[in-house]
Amino acid sequence: MRGHPLTGTISAHATAAGSTWLDRRILGRIRRSVDSAPVRFVLWDGFEIEPASQRAIATIHFKNRLALLSWAWNPDLNFGETYMSGAVEISGDFGALLDAIYRALPPKPRRWPAFGRANDARAARDNVHHHYDLGNEFYRLWLDREMVYTCAYFPTPQSTLDEAQVAKMDLVCRKLHLAPGERVIEAGCGWGALALFMARHYGVTVTAFNVSTEQIAYARARACRLGLSSRVAFVEDDYRNAVGACDAFVSLGMLEHVGLQDYPTLGRVINRTLTATGRGLLHFIGRDRPAPLNPWITRRIFPGAYPPVLREVFERVLEPADLSVLDVENLRLHYAATLEHWLQRFEDASTHVAGQFDAAFVRAWRLYLAGARVAFTTGSMQLFQVLFARSGNNAIPWVRVSGL
Amino acid sequence: MRGHPLTGTISAHATAAGSTWLDRRILGRIRRSVDSAPVRFVLWDGFEIEPASQRAIATIHFKNRLALLSWAWNPDLNFGETYMSGAVEISGDFGALLDAIYRALPPKPRRWPAFGRANDARAARDNVHHHYDLGNEFYRLWLDREMVYTCAYFPTPQSTLDEAQVAKMDLVCRKLHLAPGERVIEAGCGWGALALFMARHYGVTVTAFNVSTEQIAYARARACRLGLSSRVAFVEDDYRNAVGACDAFVSLGMLEHVGLQDYPTLGRVINRTLTATGRGLLHFIGRDRPAPLNPWITRRIFPGAYPPVLREVFERVLEPADLSVLDVENLRLHYAATLEHWLQRFEDASTHVAGQFDAAFVRAWRLYLAGARVAFTTGSMQLFQVLFARSGNNAIPWVRVSGL
Repeated sequence: MRGHPLTGTISAHATAAGSTWLDRRILGRIRRSVDSAPVRFVLWDGFEIEPASQRAIATIHFKNRLALLSWAWNPDLNFGETYMSGAVEISGDFGALLDAIYRALPPKPRRWPAFGRANDARAARDNVHHHYDLGNEFYRLWLDREMVYTCAYFPTPQSTLDEAQVAKMDLVCRKLHLAPGERVIEAGCGWGALALFMARHYGVTVTAFNVSTEQIAYARARACRLGLSSRVAFVEDDYRNAVGACDAFVSLGMLEHVGLQDYPTLGRVINRTLTATGRGLLHFIGRDRPAPLNPWITRRIFPGAYPPVLREVFERVLEPADLSVLDVENLRLHYAATLEHWLQRFEDASTHVAGQFDAAFVRAWRLYLAGARVAFTTGSMQLFQVLFARSGNNAIPWVRVSGL
Repeated sequence: MRGHPLTGTISAHATAAGSTWLDRRILGRIRRSVDSAPVRFVLWDGFEIEPASQRAIATIHFKNRLALLSWAWNPDLNFGETYMSGAVEISGDFGALLDAIYRALPPKPRRWPAFGRANDARAARDNVHHHYDLGNEFYRLWLDREMVYTCAYFPTPQSTLDEAQVAKMDLVCRKLHLAPGERVIEAGCGWGALALFMARHYGVTVTAFNVSTEQIAYARARACRLGLSSRVAFVEDDYRNAVGACDAFVSLGMLEHVGLQDYPTLGRVINRTLTATGRGLLHFIGRDRPAPLNPWITRRIFPGAYPPVLREVFERVLEPADLSVLDVENLRLHYAATLEHWLQRFEDASTHVAGQFDAAFVRAWRLYLAGARVAFTTGSMQLFQVLFARSGNNAIPWVRVSGL
C-alpha cells in the first residue's frame, strides 16, 4: 500500500483460549470508560457485556487478548489500530457508535504541552506525500467532480456535494472581493480546482503551490485542457518559496499541516507578497480549545497535522505580520455534511478501494472519515474561514458577503 | 464639571519671557518625533518651525514653557492635557492634524506588560459613573435619536446616523437569530435602546443590566412610554449578578470596561445563564495587536478601559466557558463613520456644551472624539462583533446573515 505504512499492526487472529477473570475485568473497565454509550462488548470466546440501560446500537468484538490489552493501554491510539487490522470487529451502526463513544468520553484536559517539532520543508513534503500521493484514481472514486478535498459550503443542507464545492469556491472568491486582472497566490492548491475556478470566473491570474507531484501534474493537465495555462501557474514547490506580489493570498486546508512553529513563516510569506490593499483568506480545521490531534490519525492518516485554535493563528500568523482580522466564519456543520457525502461515496466504492489497496486500508479510511464526521458533529473540531487584510488598509469592503 | 476631574491641569497662561536656546532645541526634538507630519510649531514668543517639505495643514502653538516640557516628557499623556487646558492651541484642520501625527509616530513596541489591576464591582461602578453619568442631556445633544453610544452599522456610507444605529441593532438581532418568546440578557445596556428594540421588533423578553443610575432611570421611563415594562426589565446592577437562563446573551460596548483579569468572570456568567441552544454576541472595541490605551484617554475619558485583541477574548472569556466562535465581523470603518457623525454633532452643540460644562471640557471631548475617529481610520483600533454558542450546539444557523 503505497505511502501508507501498516507495519506493526495488531494481528487479527483469534485467541484460542477462553477469556480469563482478568480479561473480563479489563473489559469491564473499558466499558465503564464509555459508560453512557449503548454498546455491546464481546470477547473472543463469546463473553459479552451488554450496555447498562439502553439497547445496544452496535457491537465491539475483540478477537484476541492483545487487542483488548492495547485498548486498556492506549485507547486513543489502539481503537484505530485494532479496527484497522481487523483485531476488533464492529457490527451495527458504525457512525452512531463513534458518535456515542465521542460523547461518552470525559472531556480532555484544558492544557497540554506545545508541540516540539516544526514541519521543515522536508518533513512537510514527506507528510504530504504520505496522504495526498495515494493516487489521483483513489480520490476520484469518492471526491466531487472538481476533486476538492476541503470542506464544502452547502447553501442548503439538500445541496449536492458537487454544488456545495462550487458554492464554497465562489464564497471564497466573493469574500476576497477578487477583481479581474488581480494576482492571486494559493498555498497548497490540491488538484487545482480553486485556482482554475478563480481564473475562469473571476478573471484573475493565479500562482498555485503544492509539493504533491501527482496533484500538480493533474492540475497542469486540467489547466491545459481548459486553456488556462497562461493564467494559472501550478508550481511544484513549497509555498514558502513564493515570491512576487499578490492582491489576494488564499490557502484552503493547508494550515493544519504547517505546524505551530512555522506559523510565523506563513505570516512572513504573506507579509512579503501581499500588496498594500490586498486581502487574504485562510480556511482550516481548528478547535475551540487547544488539544492534540488523535494519535491514531497522526500515525496513520495525517502525520504532522495539528488543528489550531483561532488565537494561535492570530498570535503567530497574523499579528507579527501586522494583519487585521476582517471576518471569521465557522463552517463546522458544513464539514460534517461534506464528510457524510465523502463517507457515503467511499463506502459505495469500498470494494474497488479494497482491490486497489486492501481491506485494512478500507477500514482505516472508513474510520478516518466517519471519525472526522463525528468530530465535527460533536463540536470537537471546527472549520474556520478567516479573512484578513493589512492593518489600516481602508480599501477593505464596507459590508461583508453572506453565503447566499 | 460633574464626574470629570480637571484638577492638576497645565496652566494656559502664556510665558512672559522669550524662548531660550534650550526651548528651541526641545521644540526641534518634538518636531522630529513626528517628522513626516505637515505641522507648524510655534512657541509663546512667536518662534516658529515650519514642516520640512510640505505646506503646514495646522499649527500647534505652545503658550508656555511647562506645556513644551510636558510634551517632551510624556507626549502620549500631555498632548491631551495641554490641549484640554488650553496651554497648547491648535489652529487649522484638527482632524487632519491628528491623522498626520498618528501616522507619523513610530510603531509601538509589540510586547508590553499585562495590566495588574482588575475592575472589581466597585471600580467598575466608579469608572462607569465617571463617563456615563455626565448627564443624559449632554449625550442627547450629539447622539442619535435612539441614544445609542456604540458603533453604528451603515448599510451604505451615505446612511444617516439614525438609520445606521437602527441597522446595527437589527444586524445584532439577526446574527443572534432571536425568536419570539426567547429570553435575552443584556450586559451594559446604556440608555436601553437595544433592549427595547429587541422586545419590540423580535418579540423577546429582556433583562438588561447597567450600573449607571441615570441611564437606567432613562431606560425605564422609555420602557413605560412604549408599554414594554412587562417585557424589558432594566436592572441597576452589575451584570455579574445576572441569574436565570437566557436564550441569548448580548453585550455591546461593555467588554472594553471589563478588564482582562475579569474576562473569566464574564465567561462564567455566560456559562451560568446561556441555555444549551443559546447564542451570544459581544461587540467591542479591539486591536490587531495588544497595546495599552492612550494614557490621556485613560486619565480623562475612560478610566480602567482596555480594548483587547480577539485572542485575549477567546482565551479568557470563551475557551474556559466551552464556547465556540461562530462568526466574527470587523466594523472598523463603520466606527470611523460613526465618530465622524458624533464629532460633527458635538461641534454643532459645542457652545451649548461649553455653557453646560466649560471650554476645557469641550476641548477634551473634541480631542477624544476626533482622536478616536483617527484611531479607527488608521487601523490603530478595530470594532469586533463576535457571535458564539456552546461547543457542539448543532442548533446553530446553517448560513450566516449579511448586513444587507
